Amino acid sequence: MNPDCVFCRIVAGAAPASVVYTDDRTVAFLDIAPITPGHLLVVPRTHAETLSELDPEIGGLLFRTGQRLAAGLRMSGVRADGVNFFLADGAPAGQEVFHVHLHVLPRWKGDGFKLNFRSGSPSRADLDATAVEIRAGLERLTLP
Amino acid sequence: MNPDCVFCRIVAGAAPASVVYTDDRTVAFLDIAPITPGHLLVVPRTHAETLSELDPEIGGLLFRTGQRLAAGLRMSGVRADGVNFFLADGAPAGQEVFHVHLHVLPRWKGDGFKLNFRSGSPSRADLDATAVEIRAGLERLTLP
Repeated sequence: MNPDCVFCRIVAGAAPASVVYTDDRTVAFLDIAPITPGHLLVVPRTHAETLSELDPEIGGLLFRTGQRLAAGLRMSGVRADGVNFFLADGAPAGQEVFHVHLHVLPRWKGDGFKLNFRSGSPSRADLDATAVEIRAGLERLTLP
Repeated sequence: MNPDCVFCRIVAGAAPASVVYTDDRTVAFLDIAPITPGHLLVVPRTHAETLSELDPEIGGLLFRTGQRLAAGLRMSGVRADGVNFFLADGAPAGQEVFHVHLHVLPRWKGDGFKLNFRSGSPSRADLDATAVEIRAGLERLTLP
């Protein structure tokens, strides 16, 4: 537990939160600035600033809790015709609280949430060249 | 394997893809319409249209592969100062291919990708009322 971390304080019950689910490794609660009503955050109980610090087993449990919440939202009174998962790893990706968190976002047609981007359309040769670079990066990892 | 599913065909090696990683349960390849260069998709080998059809254990492995890719991108020649995970479950959430897939998106400041939304600022009482509804939905699930 990191006493300077608001999500650690929530996990410890030392900061207010509207909690919807807990188990021995993960906690889920409502985002205080929801994009849509029912916008949830899933966090690991253990402090990990970014994905690189997060035990992949616990990462998997975040996803599992996210799946459970996606199903539960659809069974609830909260509108959720669809669901997005979103995670920001690092400030350039939009991470603001440095305790890993998975956003679980109820969606419906016309909810006002949109991804703004312009897709590229690279050739297969370009994609294959990018794949070679990424595979080389993966080979540099010391992961099991 | 669903022969009408493009991701099943990619997994089977029957459709072209620039693959960067495979293991016994998951496959990762480049999105052909990348938001940023190096935009990857992680899919389960087994066909599951949506999260509700996906074995949560395999869901966890998608996340684990995503973590590995996030680390590998940062070790590669592809620019990735940050990484986003994104998943769309259901058409109202933006799902287009109905074989579950996790987007892994390299990010940097000024990359042109943006989330468009207006956050709410509900009171704690409002949040607590929403939490009650979601907990009721979770209790209706027949999951273990």
